[in-house]
Amino acid sequence: MADDRKLTPRAEDFSAWYNELVLRAELADHSPVRGSMVIRPWGYGIWENMQRALDDMFKATGHENAYFPLLIPMSFIEREKEHVEGFKPELAVVTHAGGKELEEPLVIRPTSETVIYSMFAKWVQSYRDLPILMNQWANVMRWELRTRLFLRTSEFLWQEGHTAHASEPEAEEETRRMLEVYRQFMQDWIAMPVVTGLKSESEKFAGALRTYTCEAMMQDGKALQAGTSHNLGQNFSKQFELTFQNEEGVEAFAWNTSWGVSTRLVGGLVMTHGDDDGLVLPPRLAPVQVVVVPIFRKEEERTAVVERAHQIRSRLQEAGVRVRVDDRDHLNPGAKFWEWERKGVPLRIEIGPRDLAKNQVVLVRRVTPEGEDRKAFLDENEALASIPGRLEEFQRYLLERAVEAREARSYRGVTSIEELQERVDAPGGGFVYTGWSGDPEVERRIQETTKATLRCIPDPAFRSESPPERCIGGDAPSKMEVVWAKAY
Amino acid sequence: MADDRKLTPRAEDFSAWYNELVLRAELADHSPVRGSMVIRPWGYGIWENMQRALDDMFKATGHENAYFPLLIPMSFIEREKEHVEGFKPELAVVTHAGGKELEEPLVIRPTSETVIYSMFAKWVQSYRDLPILMNQWANVMRWELRTRLFLRTSEFLWQEGHTAHASEPEAEEETRRMLEVYRQFMQDWIAMPVVTGLKSESEKFAGALRTYTCEAMMQDGKALQAGTSHNLGQNFSKQFELTFQNEEGVEAFAWNTSWGVSTRLVGGLVMTHGDDDGLVLPPRLAPVQVVVVPIFRKEEERTAVVERAHQIRSRLQEAGVRVRVDDRDHLNPGAKFWEWERKGVPLRIEIGPRDLAKNQVVLVRRVTPEGEDRKAFLDENEALASIPGRLEEFQRYLLERAVEAREARSYRGVTSIEELQERVDAPGGGFVYTGWSGDPEVERRIQETTKATLRCIPDPAFRSESPPERCIGGDAPSKMEVVWAKAY
Repeated sequence: MADDRKLTPRAEDFSAWYNELVLRAELADHSPVRGSMVIRPWGYGIWENMQRALDDMFKATGHENAYFPLLIPMSFIEREKEHVEGFKPELAVVTHAGGKELEEPLVIRPTSETVIYSMFAKWVQSYRDLPILMNQWANVMRWELRTRLFLRTSEFLWQEGHTAHASEPEAEEETRRMLEVYRQFMQDWIAMPVVTGLKSESEKFAGALRTYTCEAMMQDGKALQAGTSHNLGQNFSKQFELTFQNEEGVEAFAWNTSWGVSTRLVGGLVMTHGDDDGLVLPPRLAPVQVVVVPIFRKEEERTAVVERAHQIRSRLQEAGVRVRVDDRDHLNPGAKFWEWERKGVPLRIEIGPRDLAKNQVVLVRRVTPEGEDRKAFLDENEALASIPGRLEEFQRYLLERAVEAREARSYRGVTSIEELQERVDAPGGGFVYTGWSGDPEVERRIQETTKATLRCIPDPAFRSESPPERCIGGDAPSKMEVVWAKAY
Repeated sequence: MADDRKLTPRAEDFSAWYNELVLRAELADHSPVRGSMVIRPWGYGIWENMQRALDDMFKATGHENAYFPLLIPMSFIEREKEHVEGFKPELAVVTHAGGKELEEPLVIRPTSETVIYSMFAKWVQSYRDLPILMNQWANVMRWELRTRLFLRTSEFLWQEGHTAHASEPEAEEETRRMLEVYRQFMQDWIAMPVVTGLKSESEKFAGALRTYTCEAMMQDGKALQAGTSHNLGQNFSKQFELTFQNEEGVEAFAWNTSWGVSTRLVGGLVMTHGDDDGLVLPPRLAPVQVVVVPIFRKEEERTAVVERAHQIRSRLQEAGVRVRVDDRDHLNPGAKFWEWERKGVPLRIEIGPRDLAKNQVVLVRRVTPEGEDRKAFLDENEALASIPGRLEEFQRYLLERAVEAREARSYRGVTSIEELQERVDAPGGGFVYTGWSGDPEVERRIQETTKATLRCIPDPAFRSESPPERCIGGDAPSKMEVVWAKAY
């Protein structure tokens, strides 16, 4: 039974709004196991659409799917020094199995570099076996004390790409290629614009040479790290003896990359597009793009109206639209409207006896640009023919709106830590671009005093026209421009 | 690097043949964690095709996907008495997480009835919330001492459907519906005929009222339980307080079903169709349906031949065929032929300079009906146009061949345990149909003496024309016909 109380408005308490929306739009629910969530069909349907799109993009760039074990020997995790430091505090450990205590504890994968590169080592002999370009769709476990549905849970679903290459430049190229795949997916499918760039040493993946990231801005002005791509160098190949004979016949260590996005993206989608009425779905990811609600008072009206609703469904399905008829008898139309708005369906078609007589439908958009009417009375044939175009337009509008919202809260020309703090503490927060000397001490100080973190050293496309000359931390010259924000 | 030694012939050692084939066709590999396997891209590609087909069938019958937690509190597993007896010996237990000992141990799901029905209980209030028809694609863990790739591993991938209904007949109808979905999938996609029927009390799922099964016959005459569908009655709803208000306003317990198939099906496919040269793939599940091998000696021939090979690829892709060009330079054509035959690709197109000149191709089938040539020289255009039809024919042939093989080793009219034993012990084993009084003591005795188990009480479609009148165990009248076989 859907919970149809009004949501706490975003402006009042963004965090409460988010939690309520996720539960009431039936995206996910809390489970009996602390820190683990249940992804309900509506949320899972979004994730399936994300998976399908990403999977196609991975395959188009030459990657193949495989599956590696859930359990990893503790000794594997311990081999790469930075890796174990990063992940050990979050491990879930299996100590007993089959009624006996295990000789060596096994950990539930927090990520799979170690076990995957140990297998690559078995499969690779010569440069001819390279590159290996693999991906797996899997669940992973990182024990969390403070959890939030989709954003931070002990178990989550993700994909992890893992590759091995014969040279450093090839690995770097792959790392960047997959970052770009992520950026495009987030832009074109989630309608969520991101700033891409390099992580600082303190923020990079435990075990990586370099980490690249996609940083999205949520409606509360906080950053969401939406996906990362790591150049792992030879850190893991050296620990797992992943070597190959190169073209000169010399034994060499391979170069690895790994990259991942997770169900966290569903949380990002919610916080990018949702409003006080509930979820707003980008049509390309919506499990249902159009809902058809038949409206009638008397039983004799019912048959004709419901029949027409299903005709509309067939016609739209033939045009490749994902459509559902809501012909439940125990709910009135108003309750149905609320439910599908809360669930974020982009377009609604209402059809009643009078519409039937006039061959017209009522078309309602979930959101509209300022000044436009949500509701339109349209000739049925014209309306149906226009749906695919309207969905594209809806998708485009969500992206434009998100880009505008981000740009409105991107601050450049900030030159002191005090000013940075004011910016990120103000309602609506935001991304603050400043100069940086590269001194980790400055980064540490800013994080401590402002709670903002260095999100990334942005790629050229996202840099200021006239980059800052001084480091935000004091008198040193700036070596690079960086972006600061409070983050999820 | 592919291992191209010849396989041990099936007739010599079926089990060695299977293990070698799985490794050398690069379907899967042993992992560093005892009992867990790595599914390599070729094997995973088959599984992905199985998933896609099954998922479509589940959705067409009204089911939605969702995702439930990997970890289940030990106390949940313990609630249903038969359930815990069945699964406790196989559990993997997490005792520590986040650096601390857990207050209550968590088990890695061996199956998810308990946690799923605890969630259903939260979501269901009224008969209007029923039925719930859900499915999840997930990994599960059942600790095994003796493991075999795909057939029996501690971790495996599967889908588990879980439903809740307002009445017993509806639950029974769902249980049977999904059994039929499985049967059709196995027949139409894996080209693996199965006998469907009811499990005896001793073989049913731990916690079920009734278990239905799909039993396939492997080439060594042993049975493979390929999928099961359970009517769970109210066993779980009573333990997890899954109640609803019925139409009369009375609180009632819901009726559940669950049903699953796993990566074990890949093992079933191998043992149904493989031969001494390697794997044989049903075209509908083959990651690659047609491989194109360009053949050339001199560099000046290479360009034209490889170009034509890619033209052929494009044309076949446009016709919806999954095709790959093997243009690797470091392997000779013979090595490529062996590799793709070992991997089971249904059709191979060879093209050399002379074929080019004559607008012809060489088309080779992986297997052919007795007496037909494997190899044909065909006009290129005609050959390409015929490929989709040839793939269908290949699919049909595999099913026919498998049905014939099964029928040839299905024995009816067996009336004594001694005769049953002779049958199942003979080379090639088989399915033995006999009468049964329903006495569990007879079942126990046969299992002990012959190592054959009661596979199922077959559905009407699979029963003998004149069913046996006496129970195999002695003088009692037969109450039902049953099928015995040694099994995986």
